[in-house]
Amino acid sequence: MDQIENLTASIRNFATKRDWGKFHTPKNLAMAIAGEAGELVAEFQWLTPEGSSKNELSDEKLRDIRLEMADVQIYILRLADVLGIDIAEAVSEKMKINESRFR
Amino acid sequence: MDQIENLTASIRNFATKRDWGKFHTPKNLAMAIAGEAGELVAEFQWLTPEGSSKNELSDEKLRDIRLEMADVQIYILRLADVLGIDIAEAVSEKMKINESRFR
Amino acid sequence: MDQIENLTASIRNFATKRDWGKFHTPKNLAMAIAGEAGELVAEFQWLTPEGSSKNELSDEKLRDIRLEMADVQIYILRLADVLGIDIAEAVSEKMKINESRFR
Amino acid sequence: MDQIENLTASIRNFATKRDWGKFHTPKNLAMAIAGEAGELVAEFQWLTPEGSSKNELSDEKLRDIRLEMADVQIYILRLADVLGIDIAEAVSEKMKINESRFR
Repeated sequence: MDQIENLTASIRNFATKRDWGKFHTPKNLAMAIAGEAGELVAEFQWLTPEGSSKNELSDEKLRDIRLEMADVQIYILRLADVLGIDIAEAVSEKMKINESRFR
Repeated sequence: MDQIENLTASIRNFATKRDWGKFHTPKNLAMAIAGEAGELVAEFQWLTPEGSSKNELSDEKLRDIRLEMADVQIYILRLADVLGIDIAEAVSEKMKINESRFR
Repeated sequence: MDQIENLTASIRNFATKRDWGKFHTPKNLAMAIAGEAGELVAEFQWLTPEGSSKNELSDEKLRDIRLEMADVQIYILRLADVLGIDIAEAVSEKMKINESRFR
Repeated sequence: MDQIENLTASIRNFATKRDWGKFHTPKNLAMAIAGEAGELVAEFQWLTPEGSSKNELSDEKLRDIRLEMADVQIYILRLADVLGIDIAEAVSEKMKINESRFR
């Protein structure tokens, strides 16, 4: 089983054990992605572009950012799972579209 | 090379070839994630929870959603790359935190 | 009738005429706000902080930003209307909280 | 002085007193709007559409939502101020565009 399937399965098990399937409609999961993306962007809102670089961020700030990114990623994987979407394939397809769009 | 590294490398090459590194500060990439998450949530805003399920979505709508999800995923991978974050590891760590939080 | 009530009434009439009341649940309107805020932030994602200032923006860019801001504002007024919230009063109350928080 | 100008002036004074002008670039304020919109949509993410209605929300939940809406509104007014935009006029113009678009 590959890495993405592995993570997806652990997220699915987490939700199933808590009987959260009923909450995890695609609509609600899309909202959760937007909510977590909002928290992520808020981490950066008062930083300068330079101050947002890896070397300028404190360990604590980088840790917060990392966990906010994980939250977005978790809900992306969950939504992909619920919709039967292979997210790696979707990324590859979108990158091909981008290649032809930005020559 | 694993799946996530693979996708990350292709996204990095895409940006490098176009000399987009200067735009891809962590601050800007976090904004791009929020922007794409906004487009994703907009796909679902007038749907009922039931109407957002896999079986109810038209092929065209599902395709649009899939590509919006890819956009969020691409910028998550790009931000992780720029910040030197292993996103799979971050997800695993966050899932452990969630396990202890929601017993 | 004051300015905010005036705008709120015109937005309400617009929705009522099109029989959009059924779509305008608070949940859906909150999604619409997040979606429009995503479009707004996307206008700024590749700009430098300096390049985002009033004097640096082209007329066309400023016009796009202005209309994206209007979209967020319209849905805020609509959500306030549907929830029976006086948004001017809510802002005043929140500013008082901020005053005591950031001395 | 009208209601919107009044609120705008109090927000401006709040920022000026704390010397926050340097943080309030249009780029950063757009991020703040996206961040607050993310918090607002998160309030609704696990609610059913029916459960999100005024009569179904608890007093505490409605209070939280109201203050999140105020946060979005505050940053919209601040951004409009910084960009020299009359937000009431922008809303009126956008409503005219919507009228001609959705007949």
